[in-house]
Parts: sequence; structure tokens; C-alpha cells
Amino acid sequence: MSQPEVAVANPLEPAPTEPTPHEHGYTANKEAYLRRLKRIEGQVRGIARMVDEDKYCIDILTQVAAVTKALHAVSLGLVEEHIGHCVVGAASEPDPELRAEAIDFKVKEATDAIGRLLR
Amino acid sequence: MSQPEVAVANPLEPAPTEPTPHEHGYTANKEAYLRRLKRIEGQVRGIARMVDEDKYCIDILTQVAAVTKALHAVSLGLVEEHIGHCVVGAASEPDPELRAEAIDFKVKEATDAIGRLLR
Amino acid sequence: MSQPEVAVANPLEPAPTEPTPHEHGYTANKEAYLRRLKRIEGQVRGIARMVDEDKYCIDILTQVAAVTKALHAVSLGLVEEHIGHCVVGAASEPDPELRAEAIDFKVKEATDAIGRLLR
Amino acid sequence: MSQPEVAVANPLEPAPTEPTPHEHGYTANKEAYLRRLKRIEGQVRGIARMVDEDKYCIDILTQVAAVTKALHAVSLGLVEEHIGHCVVGAASEPDPELRAEAIDFKVKEATDAIGRLLR
Repeated sequence: MSQPEVAVANPLEPAPTEPTPHEHGYTANKEAYLRRLKRIEGQVRGIARMVDEDKYCIDILTQVAAVTKALHAVSLGLVEEHIGHCVVGAASEPDPELRAEAIDFKVKEATDAIGRLLR
Repeated sequence: MSQPEVAVANPLEPAPTEPTPHEHGYTANKEAYLRRLKRIEGQVRGIARMVDEDKYCIDILTQVAAVTKALHAVSLGLVEEHIGHCVVGAASEPDPELRAEAIDFKVKEATDAIGRLLR
Repeated sequence: MSQPEVAVANPLEPAPTEPTPHEHGYTANKEAYLRRLKRIEGQVRGIARMVDEDKYCIDILTQVAAVTKALHAVSLGLVEEHIGHCVVGAASEPDPELRAEAIDFKVKEATDAIGRLLR
Repeated sequence: MSQPEVAVANPLEPAPTEPTPHEHGYTANKEAYLRRLKRIEGQVRGIARMVDEDKYCIDILTQVAAVTKALHAVSLGLVEEHIGHCVVGAASEPDPELRAEAIDFKVKEATDAIGRLLR
């Protein structure tokens, strides 16, 4: 079975944990993610309003910290679904050599993304 | 001069770095902050769009990391202006006892806010 | 039971939630990890020395930030090897039901660990 | 001009950007800092031991997160004392022009240090 473009942008993985074409780890929870991001967008707008109304800086900082935390939670959800979906998908490649390569690629990619969150 | 609702802890700031009633450390840069928050709001909306269009999870994570970084930059700006304005304002209180108290309060408050950002 | 090259890419672990004793993702790089941790230990000792010698607080903070960064790098290495080894190992479990369970468990565990790093 | 009780931790700084040698914000709590750093050093050694004994990667990650948190706490303590001591010390400079300059310098320096912690 040939699966030459396994990688980066188009995971078209047919295998064990039931990925479907054009689906990603987060697809099942898409609505929940959209709701959370909508709420975060509203929080950011709220911070702008606080600045506009000259609210106390410490109260603004508290809100900024809350948004950062909410974004971290979204990130963690995406990471969890990415590992469970894309990394595990790579592990289901039958050809051992391609599999090793695909896993390395996916794991490196996930770790780099986590590294960007840590910074 | 009446300064009734100036702020949370009443720092009695008449002095050196020219605080004015209803002004905070960030007031001078208010427009810049509003522009930055507007841009962050747009970035969050962009992330929602990526989720909606089933973009690749790693690319979404990269965008989430960028928003987190932009929020950190906003926080740091607010912290800088808070220290330079509210903490230094407290240090200008003429009565030594009130001054020591005001400084302690403001410094503790700023450090707690920084602690919330670190978590 | 001999399993000499178990590591990174294709671990074929006999029981998914039970990594073979003495065989983890990082085992292959054990010496490198020990060297890095030795260096971090020395950096922490250096910070204590700076405090003891009344060095300037900002310079101490810079060193603390450097140690935190070094620890983050160690974490990322461990996360990378954990995903590539333990998570992928779970994905190699032949029984589909056990596999799904093992993957969920490992992915959740990894994500929780990443979450603790983000906080 | 004598300004003896200006602040928190005895700032009496002769030149604003030059803290008196052997007198920093943390000096009063030096012993406590040394104890905390000693404990952190021991924790890092404990992590090395875990690696050496092939402990489970997730358990190692948990310990690394604990050390990072302990370092954050040390940082926050240093930041608090730095703001209350060096920044407030700069605010006690009698000459208004030198004072403004000294405050700007100290506040910028503190914010840069906090920025390095956030990254």
C-alpha cells in the first residue's frame, strides 16, 4: 500500500482509530471548540472595553491571565486529540520503514508545537 | 481636590510621575493597547475559522501559541506601566507610614498579578 | 526476554499500559539526560552562590530564567520520547479494544503531564 | 536631603541605578532563599536519580514540573523584593530628572526580567 504524502498538511489516514478523510483529532469536538473560541474572543473584547474605560491595571492583568489560561486549555485539547489521532494514525502504517518515518515526523511535529506553547 | 474613585487601593498619588485622576499607567498608550487587543481578537476569530474549516491541528496550535505570545506582550506592557505608575505613585506618599503601607500593598498586588501570568 | 532495540520508533510493547521495566523512551539517551541534569544542578548551585554573595537581583532572575528554560528543554525531550515510545507502543497492541483503551490512557497521561508543564 | 524611612526594605541608595553593594531586596530573606535553592538542587538530583533508575517518564515529568514551579516561586519572591526595594529606591532620588530616569531604568529592567520568566 502506498501512502507517500502521509505527512504535514493532509493526513488522509485510513486506519485504526477511525480517522476519516479531512477529519482531524478535534473534528468530533468541533462545536465545543468553536464555542470556547467564541467565548475567548468575547473575553478579549471585554479586556479592550476595560482599557477603554480606564479600569484598574491589575484587574485587566487578571483578565489577560484568564484568557491565557483558556487558550492553554484549548491548546491542550488540541494536543491531546492530535496525539491520539495523527500520531497514533502514523503508527498504523503497515510498512515498518514508512511507519517509523511517519511516527518520527508526527512526534517531532507535536513536540515542536508543545515547545512553542511552553515559550 | 477630590479624587474619589481613583482606584482599588487608594494610592494617594499626587506626585512625581504625574498621575492624573482616572489615569492609569497605560492611559498614555490606550490607543496602542486597543489596537493590539483588536488584532488579538481578530487572531482568535481566525483560529475559530481554522477549526471550522478543519485545518491541520498543528497549524492551529501554532496560531494559538502566537495569540498567547501577543497576550504576554500586552501583559508585560501593563506590568511595566503599573510598576512605573502605581508602585512609584505609592512611593511618593509623603507620610512615611502610609507610604510604606501603600508600597507594600502595591508591590504585593503587582507580584500576585505577575504570578497569575506565570501560571 | 530480549528486546534490544525497543526504542523510539516502533516499540511493539507486549502489554500496552505496562512499559517493560527498564525500557523507556529516554533510555537510549540516558547518559545525555544525566549530563544535562548535572549541569542544571550546577546552575541551581550557582544561583545559591549568587544569593549568598549578594549579587544583583536582576542577574539572579536571569539565571533562574535560564534554569527554567533548561528544564523545559529536558521536559520536551522526555515528552517527545514518551509519545514516540509509550503512546506509539500502546498503538501496537493487536487487540483493537485493548488498543483503543491503552491509547486513550497513554494520550491522556501525556497530555496531563504537558498541562502540568504549562502551568 | 535625608529620606531615611522611604521604603520597604531599606533602600537608602546613594546613586539610583547603583544599589549599595551587599544590600538588595532579598538580603533580609537570604537564609530562606538559600534553603529553598538547596531544596531545589536536591529535587534536580532526585530527577537525575529517577532517570538513572529508569523510572516512568510521566513520573519524571511530574517532578520536572514541580521544580519549575519551585523556581517560579523563587523568581516571584525576587521580583517582589526587587520592585519594593530597587524600583522604590529609585523613586526616592530627590532630583526629579535623575529620579525619572532612574525609575524608567529600574522599571524597564524589572519588566525585562519578568519577560524572560514568561518565556
